[in-house]
Amino acid sequence: MSKLTDVPKRILIGRALRSDRLGETLLPKRIALPVFASDPLSSVAYAPGEVLLVLSIAGVSAYHFSPWIAVAVVVLMFTVVASYRQNVHAYPSGGGDYEVANTNLGPKAGLTVASALLVDYVLTVAVSIASGIENLGSAIPFVVEHKVLCAIAVIVLLTLMNLRGVKESGKLFAIPTYVFVTGVFLMIAWGAFRGLVLGDTMKAPTADFTIKAEHQGLAGFALVFLLLRAFSSGCAALTGVEAISNGVPAFRKPKSRNAATTLAAMGLLAVTMFCGIIALAMATNVRMAERPAHDLLENGVAVGSDYVQNPVISQVAEAVFGSGSFLFIVLAAATALVLFLAANTAYNGFPLLGSILAQDRYLPRQLHTRGDRLAFSNGIVLLAGAAILLIWIYGADSTRLIQLYIVGVFVSFTLSQTGMVRHWNRHLATEKDQAKRRHMVRSRAINAFGAFFTGLVLVVVLGTKFTHGAWVALLGMVIFYATMSAIRKHYDRVAEEIAAPEGPSDDSLRPSRVHSVVLISKIHRPALRALGYAKLMRSDTLEALSVNVDPAETKALRDEWERRGFTVPLKILDSPYREITRPVIEYVKGLRRESPRDVVSVIIPEYVVGHWYEHLLHNQSALRLKGRLLFTPGVMVTSVPYQLESSEVAKKRARRRSEWTAPGSVRRGPAEHRPKEPSGSSGSSGPKR
Amino acid sequence: MSKLTDVPKRILIGRALRSDRLGETLLPKRIALPVFASDPLSSVAYAPGEVLLVLSIAGVSAYHFSPWIAVAVVVLMFTVVASYRQNVHAYPSGGGDYEVANTNLGPKAGLTVASALLVDYVLTVAVSIASGIENLGSAIPFVVEHKVLCAIAVIVLLTLMNLRGVKESGKLFAIPTYVFVTGVFLMIAWGAFRGLVLGDTMKAPTADFTIKAEHQGLAGFALVFLLLRAFSSGCAALTGVEAISNGVPAFRKPKSRNAATTLAAMGLLAVTMFCGIIALAMATNVRMAERPAHDLLENGVAVGSDYVQNPVISQVAEAVFGSGSFLFIVLAAATALVLFLAANTAYNGFPLLGSILAQDRYLPRQLHTRGDRLAFSNGIVLLAGAAILLIWIYGADSTRLIQLYIVGVFVSFTLSQTGMVRHWNRHLATEKDQAKRRHMVRSRAINAFGAFFTGLVLVVVLGTKFTHGAWVALLGMVIFYATMSAIRKHYDRVAEEIAAPEGPSDDSLRPSRVHSVVLISKIHRPALRALGYAKLMRSDTLEALSVNVDPAETKALRDEWERRGFTVPLKILDSPYREITRPVIEYVKGLRRESPRDVVSVIIPEYVVGHWYEHLLHNQSALRLKGRLLFTPGVMVTSVPYQLESSEVAKKRARRRSEWTAPGSVRRGPAEHRPKEPSGSSGSSGPKR
Repeated sequence: MSKLTDVPKRILIGRALRSDRLGETLLPKRIALPVFASDPLSSVAYAPGEVLLVLSIAGVSAYHFSPWIAVAVVVLMFTVVASYRQNVHAYPSGGGDYEVANTNLGPKAGLTVASALLVDYVLTVAVSIASGIENLGSAIPFVVEHKVLCAIAVIVLLTLMNLRGVKESGKLFAIPTYVFVTGVFLMIAWGAFRGLVLGDTMKAPTADFTIKAEHQGLAGFALVFLLLRAFSSGCAALTGVEAISNGVPAFRKPKSRNAATTLAAMGLLAVTMFCGIIALAMATNVRMAERPAHDLLENGVAVGSDYVQNPVISQVAEAVFGSGSFLFIVLAAATALVLFLAANTAYNGFPLLGSILAQDRYLPRQLHTRGDRLAFSNGIVLLAGAAILLIWIYGADSTRLIQLYIVGVFVSFTLSQTGMVRHWNRHLATEKDQAKRRHMVRSRAINAFGAFFTGLVLVVVLGTKFTHGAWVALLGMVIFYATMSAIRKHYDRVAEEIAAPEGPSDDSLRPSRVHSVVLISKIHRPALRALGYAKLMRSDTLEALSVNVDPAETKALRDEWERRGFTVPLKILDSPYREITRPVIEYVKGLRRESPRDVVSVIIPEYVVGHWYEHLLHNQSALRLKGRLLFTPGVMVTSVPYQLESSEVAKKRARRRSEWTAPGSVRRGPAEHRPKEPSGSSGSSGPKR
Repeated sequence: MSKLTDVPKRILIGRALRSDRLGETLLPKRIALPVFASDPLSSVAYAPGEVLLVLSIAGVSAYHFSPWIAVAVVVLMFTVVASYRQNVHAYPSGGGDYEVANTNLGPKAGLTVASALLVDYVLTVAVSIASGIENLGSAIPFVVEHKVLCAIAVIVLLTLMNLRGVKESGKLFAIPTYVFVTGVFLMIAWGAFRGLVLGDTMKAPTADFTIKAEHQGLAGFALVFLLLRAFSSGCAALTGVEAISNGVPAFRKPKSRNAATTLAAMGLLAVTMFCGIIALAMATNVRMAERPAHDLLENGVAVGSDYVQNPVISQVAEAVFGSGSFLFIVLAAATALVLFLAANTAYNGFPLLGSILAQDRYLPRQLHTRGDRLAFSNGIVLLAGAAILLIWIYGADSTRLIQLYIVGVFVSFTLSQTGMVRHWNRHLATEKDQAKRRHMVRSRAINAFGAFFTGLVLVVVLGTKFTHGAWVALLGMVIFYATMSAIRKHYDRVAEEIAAPEGPSDDSLRPSRVHSVVLISKIHRPALRALGYAKLMRSDTLEALSVNVDPAETKALRDEWERRGFTVPLKILDSPYREITRPVIEYVKGLRRESPRDVVSVIIPEYVVGHWYEHLLHNQSALRLKGRLLFTPGVMVTSVPYQLESSEVAKKRARRRSEWTAPGSVRRGPAEHRPKEPSGSSGSSGPKR
């Protein structure tokens, strides 16, 4: 049955491009940066705030640790960026972390990374949208009062856009991202100017609040644990760094170098913004608490559950630019927009990953086909559905969602860096050239340090966040892993079952005869056509078959058959239950019993209709019969279509559908991006029969 | 794609019976009464209370009108019963009201009746379940606190039972119905005995309450209107009377006479119970109000929204038998049970009506086939879904739902009685025999009075209940009518389009040649089988076709083809987008362009799998290709199935499915219940080719 939703015409012009023309859509660095880096850059909208939230547990005094946390995050960022620069040079095919782990650590590790990435995509959507809504809400109060509703609305909107197949326009990404980056830098610069040069006191809206510390005066082990927790929250700033390694094929030549440069630029921008925001937050005395209703006190009184805790970036902007000022609004809007765009990267990354996984038979095969709209649509809808579920369960609270977010990211960081170390070891074993060796040793050192550090962070994250929600992410990973394993096992088993034997098999021994049976209910055009086609096929026997559901109609059929003088014999089957399927199946089985080596070809007229509801009105019995016939050995089923007038509509729709651009096609680059032999030419072999 | 739910084995034994053996399951009167009359008999559980609720608007003093209302209802009941006794004699085929209206008043009237009946079925489920829950709640308080939840649970349970195909056992119906009837009669007798002989004062639990009348001291027009409203509420007692006329074929011979007798018995029982309950309600001073939270006062204070207003039958039982006594519990349970059984009649009446409507092409054709499990399942699920929606919207409040209920019933009463008058007129025009003529004139008089009276009641119901909810029922009727008209129009248009022309048509002019194309992706067993079968068909040309999605795989395919020395030529199509559908379509169209009078036969290997999820992993591209091919003129598509091991599971399941008993098969009686020519014998005509 056809898909029930009909997707309207694409809003952007242009047919899907042939691969040899895709060169025109390869991205220059200045466009690639926003396209691929919107995820990590947008993370600075929530990561600094998360640090403060955790620190607030020990009271405002703990805030003075935040610069140290920031330093740790910066070091980690530099490490990860440096490590990934090695990745993009070594694996320019865009397989990303999955390919690195798969190639170097084996399929189980690869599948683990894949599961982590899939969970990551869902959480990217959930966290980015939730945070975007919170940032938008700082300018538009209505949004904050209906957080879950607005969040779900945005997800639905993004889903529809991606289902339509909006071509991921680089320019569409560039503007909000650059506005956001510029805005934050402007804010940092202006804040620094005002504070250091003009000597203004800038106060955040929460500057006068106090925090009721859960644990005042923490020390020793507990303090260290708290700092680690704060650090792991700050690591949310690193989410999305690996996107560039997935997208190397989309860069202009030299691909790897441009990708590496973009990575560096992104890292630099991100750490600057992160540190700048933390610094300004300290300078303007931002006060944030994990449970503000409880622990945030205004004049000694808890602010209560009606209080809306605005994100740190918005509080700082308010302090630096002034409440409700033009720049404040612009920054809030750009932040929200860039967060929504970051969510969109998941919609594009997902089919890419799905295609690669399908090629390795971990997912249904049709995801591997480029233009397969329906399979992608299903995947996009699943992604959106999972994100909506999370948003709904967690009340669109970005802080709670972030607890789930970081685990998957660091699993794939650690495994991919470890894989790179193995990669370099493998190459060092065979490489002779001294210059190349030195380069490899250096890369290996970087990746080793990266693996060690990210592994450590992974342990910290698991330790500090397991009960806070990380277990949900792990559960998701387990489910994905199990499903993909099962799919792979299934494909392997089936491939074994159907492997063609050497030498002649039972099937290639030509069966002796073929009996054709045409199903007739009434003499109309479709039936006449089926009869005509059947006669063409020159089978050993041919007869028409009708089931006696209504005696009056059957008699009329027989009379007309004789009147028209058809030479094909008409056989009527009794049906006391007024059903069609069983008598036909019994008859076909009877034919096969008489001559087991013969094949029965059942020819069924089929109406081709235009609208989905018309499917409900026609062909249902034929469909059911076909289904049962397929179980009967030695039978083949032929459909002879008769196109009704309304099918013209559907034909046009199907043609439009095939011209649809799959999401992520810009990121994937040209079709031949995985190393393989050059494309074969078409031709035929052997004489015509 | 196969249906996702797998339904477990039937719990009752016995295969579907052949029509010649169905004689054993025809119902004797004592079983037919509970099966067909449970709906009208159960109506007395809510109808008397509805009368009191409406009267309470004018204060307790208005209660003394209730005996008069009861008399009016009794007269109406006798009229309707007498009228339907004519129906069952004149139309013993079980077409019921639809057939009467269709035959005598034309298709539009017939369709109106059908729409009314369909709405009626949904409301039967909703009202009966809601009322059953309220009655159950008088014994089990938990149920009443979660009315909507329990109601929906019961509907789901009933739906599952009917999906499984539990054979509607007559005995299953008989016991609760007879317990209910006996219980009510016992209550009436015992109450009369205690009140009149022993002189006990029996007080209902609400006897001490007062009612704050909305309009005290109504008179004149307003009073008449109120009485009419109360009367139309009391008419809820008549719902379901027509069920017997639909079920005449299921009676033992003489069918019509037995059905008429059962009707009379049912009418007698119903009016007795109705009047008895009203009388006891008056005697025990039951106090009920439409909005009890507001208008029911206990010691001058409104009882508030926590108060649960128990149904009148339960209040009377409490007064007569004593609160919490054994008989009280038994009666409450039996009342609830018989109401649930009444709801079940809708599950059985619906496929019956659907089958008849499908035969007249107002509904999809597959509903006409007896054993079509899937179509019935869909209908049952739709019915349940609509009922659940109503229950949810109206908060499982039987009083509010009843406002919708009565309209549809009286539409079909009125139209069917009018149709009967037409029927008698038609016969009187041709009948000569005096005795028969007298009989017909008498019947006509009865039906005419019935038509007049029910028409009057219909006007009253519309007038008094339109704003209270009847408009919803009318809207439902309009939607059904429009949908069925559209379906009929569609079938008519298609029939016209495909009507076979006299003499030779384009299709029967034998096309010149047929080109066979076998789709190969890899050399495995399914492909070998498809190749083998294709060779059998002796077409004019035969070639194998493969799409170059992966150059490495294509090269391997070509090498193996040569290695195995296949004589069939292999053609490779380029596919720069890595899709399969478009290159194949283009190629096939190319073949047709070269020789427009030729036919292309596309042969596709197909995996037959056992579990629904396996469908997602295989055949998807093949399915999509088949869909597109069907739009291409001059093409026929052959599936060559290869049964994987897992398909054994599905084979067993499909066999079990075909042995399922359709709901309502007991009510429908043997297959040949509509007047038609005797069943033809099977045979063949013409020489074998």
